[in-house]
Amino acid sequence: MVGVDTDEHRVALIRQGRMPFHYPEIEDWLASCVKRGSLTASVSAAESIQSSDVVVLTVGTPPGGQYQLEYSQLHAALKEIVSADLHNKALVVRSTAAPGTLRDIVLPMLIDSTGLRPEIDFALAACPERILEGQAHRELYELPEIIGGIGPISNMIATELFKKISPEKRIFTTTPTGAELAKLFTNIHRYVNFALANEFAIWAEAYNENAREIIGVANEGYPRSRIPQPGFAGGPCLAKDGFLLDNGTTFSSIVSVAWKLNEGIPQHVVAVLLRELGTLYGKRVAVLGLAFKADSDDVRLSPSQKLIEILRAYGATTLVHDPNVTGTLPLHDVLNEPDAVILATRHSAFRSLAEEIDRSGCRVVYDVWGMFANAKFSTAKYVEFGSRR
Amino acid sequence: MVGVDTDEHRVALIRQGRMPFHYPEIEDWLASCVKRGSLTASVSAAESIQSSDVVVLTVGTPPGGQYQLEYSQLHAALKEIVSADLHNKALVVRSTAAPGTLRDIVLPMLIDSTGLRPEIDFALAACPERILEGQAHRELYELPEIIGGIGPISNMIATELFKKISPEKRIFTTTPTGAELAKLFTNIHRYVNFALANEFAIWAEAYNENAREIIGVANEGYPRSRIPQPGFAGGPCLAKDGFLLDNGTTFSSIVSVAWKLNEGIPQHVVAVLLRELGTLYGKRVAVLGLAFKADSDDVRLSPSQKLIEILRAYGATTLVHDPNVTGTLPLHDVLNEPDAVILATRHSAFRSLAEEIDRSGCRVVYDVWGMFANAKFSTAKYVEFGSRR
Repeated sequence: MVGVDTDEHRVALIRQGRMPFHYPEIEDWLASCVKRGSLTASVSAAESIQSSDVVVLTVGTPPGGQYQLEYSQLHAALKEIVSADLHNKALVVRSTAAPGTLRDIVLPMLIDSTGLRPEIDFALAACPERILEGQAHRELYELPEIIGGIGPISNMIATELFKKISPEKRIFTTTPTGAELAKLFTNIHRYVNFALANEFAIWAEAYNENAREIIGVANEGYPRSRIPQPGFAGGPCLAKDGFLLDNGTTFSSIVSVAWKLNEGIPQHVVAVLLRELGTLYGKRVAVLGLAFKADSDDVRLSPSQKLIEILRAYGATTLVHDPNVTGTLPLHDVLNEPDAVILATRHSAFRSLAEEIDRSGCRVVYDVWGMFANAKFSTAKYVEFGSRR
Repeated sequence: MVGVDTDEHRVALIRQGRMPFHYPEIEDWLASCVKRGSLTASVSAAESIQSSDVVVLTVGTPPGGQYQLEYSQLHAALKEIVSADLHNKALVVRSTAAPGTLRDIVLPMLIDSTGLRPEIDFALAACPERILEGQAHRELYELPEIIGGIGPISNMIATELFKKISPEKRIFTTTPTGAELAKLFTNIHRYVNFALANEFAIWAEAYNENAREIIGVANEGYPRSRIPQPGFAGGPCLAKDGFLLDNGTTFSSIVSVAWKLNEGIPQHVVAVLLRELGTLYGKRVAVLGLAFKADSDDVRLSPSQKLIEILRAYGATTLVHDPNVTGTLPLHDVLNEPDAVILATRHSAFRSLAEEIDRSGCRVVYDVWGMFANAKFSTAKYVEFGSRR
């Protein structure tokens, strides 16, 4: 098996058996795979494709600057595949894509540039990834796969491929567009429920009540209630998938409102800091956490990053610490006389920091995740997202 | 125990041990309670209150004509309680109410009109009902209660009351407004998820795919996916609770969009019928189901009723059959040469009707719930909500 990437540094790390990102659970496993030769890495797509029977496409599909489809990575990869020869190969598209991408973009491009016959000369299937970041080592074995092949032969080959991960793995087959929609429905369902939790937090603040407590008792022992707790919702998957879904029409409703609401939470945090501090101009604001996800180092489309940019626009000096993200400041430096401290990412390492934050002498502690709800702050005012003033 | 209602017919039925609405599961239980004297009914509130230690208020809080708070039933009940003397009694408000109702409406009214001291002369608690219609006989024992008393004594008395139903019943105490919010969060969470499923159905139609199939595979074996299936969402609880929540501010977002979307589905059905039949003017449309809920007879704020009104506005003749709702037509009459048949309520009795509908010779069968997805229609075109054209 060969992993292909355009990033030479990343490829070099993998070849040395070292993880190119924060994922301690699979470090040993990677090293042993590379050592026994079952996995290698390459920057040469053409060569790697030529030597393979199955090509799994996992390129990113980030939104463009105006949230339009931005498929340059996809097109670049398809060109590599076409020039390396697709004959007698199977292509599995693992990326999250707009509905119709396989049917209306990938398939016509492949037929037109190769002259090959689908299902006869090559196989093609959409099978979007659904694992949780940081849980691949468990969920790749446990989660069912949804396969949308362009025909029965493609479905059969893709099924065989995923059964190699585990023979017990459940496989569902549907249409290519059905598989693409299933992935988007899954992510958007989660994202909208996070947005709703954030809406509840805003209501709780308006009524001077505590959203976390209320959601807790509403869920407890009640079979029809699975309301998530409020907090930042963003990242490279959830925040953009609504735009992939509504790519096909001009109509949009709950999905776009959910996006607007989740994207508004960083501004909401700034509004509360303004209320507490009067102005942010020249103030020192410590931000704990830059990754979008607890215990991850992934900063793509992170609400924390957006928060920092807004704080800077208001003239604040931001001091950012994230134990997983290189290039951020040490904890000691960001707690050096800040006016405010914001707990922005739910990293487990932050759970024990309440006392240290208290000693920093800051005036406000803003807690997006309610991690310090039971801590005592001697000088600082503690403000929890979705709670009483 | 005495049940009080302003409806003399309803009270007369209860006194005879007969259910005043469709609820076969508790008919025998009601009859035996009345027979052994543990339950009676009365139209005299004053008398009933005077002879009781605890008063449980279950009046309706339907929205007003402009979706404003409409608390005439609540005010009428409070007047009865005040005039009957509240001294040494406990009042438990079981109705779903806007956040702040107990604190800002009920409590000041009681203090002002009685001169009594809360927590000393009377107890008061919000404890909103959360059972599913038709499941009270099971859920009253199983579901936890959320009690928001105006103080510790009120919490204690309300707790004791609900422990009488079952000593194992779990009780959570919070603030009065917290209890009101918990109920609204629960219902709105469900309602928004129904709206999202309906949005997915609209998308699936746009991409010419089947929402029910896609949601099925998205949920199957996937721990983070609990997407409901699409269909009508309405009724006296879910459809109005968003308006109770946003009563306190002018801000609104996901909740109001979800309402708009769910309320738009009947019009969507009419649009599809127009596409299939050209015009609805003078057409005969059979509507199966008037209740908002499967196997219930409750027609309050039913989307089916809204659908019928829209059909009539377009000049169609509507033929309505609901086995649980008196005053509707027999099945045989509504299937007498209709142009279209709409399956509007998911009553279990409808499951076996496909053949009979087919024999009616109608041109279109519109299935809001996908109940006939596996049936064959020889002449009629079958259209399922959220599916292919």
